[in-house]
Amino acid sequence: MDDGKETPHIHASIITIGDELLIGQVVDTNSAWMARELNKTGIWLRRRVSIGDIKSEIQQALGEESRHADIILITGGLGPTADDITKPVLCEYFGGTMVMNEEALENVRQIFSKFDRPLLERNIQQAEVPDNCVVLQNKRGTAPGMWFEKEGKVYVSMPGVPHEMKGMMLDDVIPRLQKYFRFPHIDHRTLITFGIGESFLAETIKEWEAALPVHLKLAYLPNYGMVRLRITGIDSDADRLQRELNEQFETLKKQVSEWLITDKDLPLAEVVGNHLLKNKKTVATAESCTGGYIAHLITSIPGSSGWYKGTIVSYANEIKENVLGVNDQTLRSVGAVSEDTVKQMVKGVLDRLNTDYAVATSGIMGPDGGTAEKPVGTVWVAAGSRNAIKAKQFFFRYDRERNIEMTAYQALNLLRIMVIEEQRD
Amino acid sequence: MDDGKETPHIHASIITIGDELLIGQVVDTNSAWMARELNKTGIWLRRRVSIGDIKSEIQQALGEESRHADIILITGGLGPTADDITKPVLCEYFGGTMVMNEEALENVRQIFSKFDRPLLERNIQQAEVPDNCVVLQNKRGTAPGMWFEKEGKVYVSMPGVPHEMKGMMLDDVIPRLQKYFRFPHIDHRTLITFGIGESFLAETIKEWEAALPVHLKLAYLPNYGMVRLRITGIDSDADRLQRELNEQFETLKKQVSEWLITDKDLPLAEVVGNHLLKNKKTVATAESCTGGYIAHLITSIPGSSGWYKGTIVSYANEIKENVLGVNDQTLRSVGAVSEDTVKQMVKGVLDRLNTDYAVATSGIMGPDGGTAEKPVGTVWVAAGSRNAIKAKQFFFRYDRERNIEMTAYQALNLLRIMVIEEQRD
Repeated sequence: MDDGKETPHIHASIITIGDELLIGQVVDTNSAWMARELNKTGIWLRRRVSIGDIKSEIQQALGEESRHADIILITGGLGPTADDITKPVLCEYFGGTMVMNEEALENVRQIFSKFDRPLLERNIQQAEVPDNCVVLQNKRGTAPGMWFEKEGKVYVSMPGVPHEMKGMMLDDVIPRLQKYFRFPHIDHRTLITFGIGESFLAETIKEWEAALPVHLKLAYLPNYGMVRLRITGIDSDADRLQRELNEQFETLKKQVSEWLITDKDLPLAEVVGNHLLKNKKTVATAESCTGGYIAHLITSIPGSSGWYKGTIVSYANEIKENVLGVNDQTLRSVGAVSEDTVKQMVKGVLDRLNTDYAVATSGIMGPDGGTAEKPVGTVWVAAGSRNAIKAKQFFFRYDRERNIEMTAYQALNLLRIMVIEEQRD
Repeated sequence: MDDGKETPHIHASIITIGDELLIGQVVDTNSAWMARELNKTGIWLRRRVSIGDIKSEIQQALGEESRHADIILITGGLGPTADDITKPVLCEYFGGTMVMNEEALENVRQIFSKFDRPLLERNIQQAEVPDNCVVLQNKRGTAPGMWFEKEGKVYVSMPGVPHEMKGMMLDDVIPRLQKYFRFPHIDHRTLITFGIGESFLAETIKEWEAALPVHLKLAYLPNYGMVRLRITGIDSDADRLQRELNEQFETLKKQVSEWLITDKDLPLAEVVGNHLLKNKKTVATAESCTGGYIAHLITSIPGSSGWYKGTIVSYANEIKENVLGVNDQTLRSVGAVSEDTVKQMVKGVLDRLNTDYAVATSGIMGPDGGTAEKPVGTVWVAAGSRNAIKAKQFFFRYDRERNIEMTAYQALNLLRIMVIEEQRD
């Protein structure tokens, strides 16, 4: 397996197995993560397929995907219950026989003794594997992974539990694939714009885009008022690819400089955090309608405790008054969803949590709570410091979930603008 | 189209088109939503396939999926930029010619005038459609949908923007499918358990599961310490299906009653909320390590303002002291991640936000911040009322994201237990 074949374009396909994916009871986040990791390695993901726990469907999918791809990554269906049939189906498909794997069995035993749970026959069976695969031990759970080879193609079966799959991919699967194949170089450059539509952006860079060489590809990824622009390049020569990507990326950055918020593929909250960190400033949030979502976006970023102190989610008006110090006269005259209220919320949280900056939101997210004067989707956001506070009104027309998200991103962007403006002064 | 064919098992396939799905820059949440809606209608989703913006791949996928399914739902690739090629590819595939659709053009004009943006040639082109499809007008964006029929199969192309796709599915696509086909009845019963492993659960209900009739299927969906058990039935007779599902579901509920937290498919936060609502009680949260994620889970639920007042996210210790009133002696002696601290956080937030119940979290989520004594994954949660506060320690071994999620669910479950216990008294 060490003599690596010369294979300039390696394609992969992901098969996720599980009825729960087909009735929409879970969102498939595994595939996106796997796609990112494959991509970094230089493997071009060609297709992602989700199918149910049905023998004929699994067999058919294995056949079809092997015509599309060199590497077939399979997740799911390895659990201990009756609906988990991936392992016996793979065993039969590749013409093997089930045997007990002692190392996997020892692993199952250890996990059950650690959690002090009785070891059942069905758990012991999890350590059985086909005799014609390389067993990938699972350091995070009971179901081992399996690596099959057939006619120059590689098939890898992994558990569907996200952290078990991720660990197995990074520890075992990627390193093994790197030994088995020789990959071309794939790389990306990503920038993010805020406040310009996809079409207008496309018009702005039309000539540059048309002149891009064929092995560089541009993608527009609009979301939450932002557009991410990503150049992807593929080349057998890593240095040449880097040079070319850098050159094209510099030109692109100049053309969109007016709307550019970062030339890295970062979450907006991290972009804001980096501005704050650079200036050793801190921020806190006062959230009403976003209900902690801004705090969650911020605290999902490792190291955010270096610039973020906390939030007060004032879902009830009495919290706005008693904890944030919003004037009850304001609440009674212009209401909670108003410019005055969000500005007072900013002041209140600056004071209560003692930070340099603060951001506040108040709005009607739906589906209920709208009035003729303030329909569902009416939102006020404010951001600022002790020097200046700015507020902005929005009218969103989405569902509750997206209204919350849109408000959070607009609030973070307003904060970003305020931080940059004060740095300039 | 009104004479509905007699088709007992209608299968659907979803094709999502877009390079961004294959490099993992976005998570596909559309497919899960579509799957749920199809399922409610009695359409059995058989496969979900994601492919890139590449002509040959789209053509191949159309051919393959039409062999698997009667209905092929396509999303993505309808935008105004050069990488969006779905429309011309479909036009050619079905042998049509592009023509201007006046109603779609008027819609594009209105949207651009509303947002006061210049109308570009590429936006006008969005109103062009193949002449051999039924045009599905887009009330939420510029790209119209397209409905093709070929050899008894239906192909529907929709925009990839979630709220545009959702609106089009509910307004147009589902009603049209219901006219075109006659569906069998599909229905589900779902319950959720907490605190029992998947294997042990399977062992507990082994005999009942083995005796299930073939047209009823059981699935185990474990996540965040919970296991959802779902029975799915398919039958041409709706009444018979309901009776049978109800009967089997009652038996199942009895067998797992010890761990049962709800017999509906609800988020845990909503289960807790329903207990509070029933007793007209309120809750607030004090979050350190979960950083607003519990608040976000709660406020994502419409109507949560009826029982939820807010959160104080005390990411910095000074907030724990100054806002929540945690003793600085406690913080210095046993630290922020301790039983004393989370109990004091509960007391502080009960007092500050004036609620009947409160829940608090403090822990080390990683990747940094761990010590020999308190490694990454060490978590304390507490929940209670003015009568009693209980705290519980956990050691999670996951990544930052999952550690946050696991903590949030354990905290909500502890709160659930405390609320139920006090109701019993």
